[in-house]
Amino acid sequence: MNIGIVGLGLMGGSLAKAVKRYGIAKKVLGYINNEKNKKDVLELKLVDEIVDLETLKKESDVIILAVPVDAIIEMFPSFLDIDEKTTIIDMGSTKEYIVKNIPEEIRENFVPAHPMTGTEKSGPKAAIDDLYEGKTVVLCNLEKNGNTHVNKAFRIFQGIGMRIVVMDADEHDVHACFMSHLPHAISFSLANTVMSHEDPKSIIALAAGGFKDMSRIAKSSPRMWTDIFKQNRKNLLSSIDLFEEHMKKVRKMVEDENYEELEKWMAKANTLHEIL
Amino acid sequence: MNIGIVGLGLMGGSLAKAVKRYGIAKKVLGYINNEKNKKDVLELKLVDEIVDLETLKKESDVIILAVPVDAIIEMFPSFLDIDEKTTIIDMGSTKEYIVKNIPEEIRENFVPAHPMTGTEKSGPKAAIDDLYEGKTVVLCNLEKNGNTHVNKAFRIFQGIGMRIVVMDADEHDVHACFMSHLPHAISFSLANTVMSHEDPKSIIALAAGGFKDMSRIAKSSPRMWTDIFKQNRKNLLSSIDLFEEHMKKVRKMVEDENYEELEKWMAKANTLHEIL
Repeated sequence: MNIGIVGLGLMGGSLAKAVKRYGIAKKVLGYINNEKNKKDVLELKLVDEIVDLETLKKESDVIILAVPVDAIIEMFPSFLDIDEKTTIIDMGSTKEYIVKNIPEEIRENFVPAHPMTGTEKSGPKAAIDDLYEGKTVVLCNLEKNGNTHVNKAFRIFQGIGMRIVVMDADEHDVHACFMSHLPHAISFSLANTVMSHEDPKSIIALAAGGFKDMSRIAKSSPRMWTDIFKQNRKNLLSSIDLFEEHMKKVRKMVEDENYEELEKWMAKANTLHEIL
Repeated sequence: MNIGIVGLGLMGGSLAKAVKRYGIAKKVLGYINNEKNKKDVLELKLVDEIVDLETLKKESDVIILAVPVDAIIEMFPSFLDIDEKTTIIDMGSTKEYIVKNIPEEIRENFVPAHPMTGTEKSGPKAAIDDLYEGKTVVLCNLEKNGNTHVNKAFRIFQGIGMRIVVMDADEHDVHACFMSHLPHAISFSLANTVMSHEDPKSIIALAAGGFKDMSRIAKSSPRMWTDIFKQNRKNLLSSIDLFEEHMKKVRKMVEDENYEELEKWMAKANTLHEIL
């Protein structure tokens, strides 16, 4: 099949590499809005052809939207005249707001997906060969999709080595919040705590694995993550509140020198071991 | 030289491997308080000989204390009769409280050190070959040490491939707090937030790199970390307060839908890029 990818940064660029490497796409078409990125995509040979949106719509069997979540919503009107056989898949990190806003005319075609993978990098140069391999992709609210569209989504994601999980968009947004959106809010806060210090350089000179791991995703794209926080606002606020209860708890145990309780609380955190 | 190591878990066990591998120690002696660990150390052949504390004191040119920070303090009285040529090095994660409490009789011999490295694992089986290679070790308040003792500490840490940084214990404790102790408090809190959910398993099924990285150090030893939080209590409390300002800020920006400010705040966190 021909696969058209809208947006060729980390997610779209890595997908282009994957569908080519696994021989899933006969031809990969790309649509890019940004001149600088266009140059990089050509140099990196991420797609077979860069085309305008109308050509991409006509020539693709599956169109993948790999742009920030707000841009996904903004693009809906452009797809209202899509052929009934053409599948559209979005790869946004939030799902409820997107699912709610898919126009009725293309709801059958439109498969809402979220591949649970990424790095802190962005742009075409961030695209890597094995971003999707062995990772999980969540597909949401498939009951409204035509079978042919669901099948094409399965063929692509299974074909590039992903594990498929199906759940409702609202459930997805709660889970993704705990596993990704809340950790990003925390990592941005930790990085800002250190960068606000009068001499961050001499502090960071002592950085070891702990801080490096905890601050890695604080390097992620502000544009992309502002949109995600916006679209998953309600869940993010309540997950921050739950997290803050624990930060208050640890602060209080340390302040009160309640070390017996502190050790138990750490041991509770250790039980994560049993699952992850 | 003969090196005696007290405590042969992750830190002590990995040090035993390193000083043998680099040919720095003619003989490595070990002292272990815990029967289960003793068995593991013998099976793993981490040391040349397991001895009692008196033998270790007599036969070692350098004694390394690789036990939790409270245990270091508790051991001070055992070393009061140490030979003046014998060097003692502790590897605790906090330095101010330890430096303040070193008995005057052994202050010349006692080199306070903190190798900025580790993993979330503990015990002899956690010992790995290259834990120290290319990492930083902080040595504190060397002005009170005899030259021969400082030289031996340098020979060992340089010899196993470490970068040596010298600073005062109080400065060390502030830096180590931001780079390690605060990140641990945050990671324990994040893990507890998820583990307190009614169905952690189905949430963690979606874990990707972000959550895995952010929760890794939440698997660290509660015993060891309770002691560290206790000894660096003051710095930990103020660093939590600074971090909490940022958590409140991000929460408020999301609640007020102040997305322009949110994007700027994320971009500020991104500047970490330039240093780390």
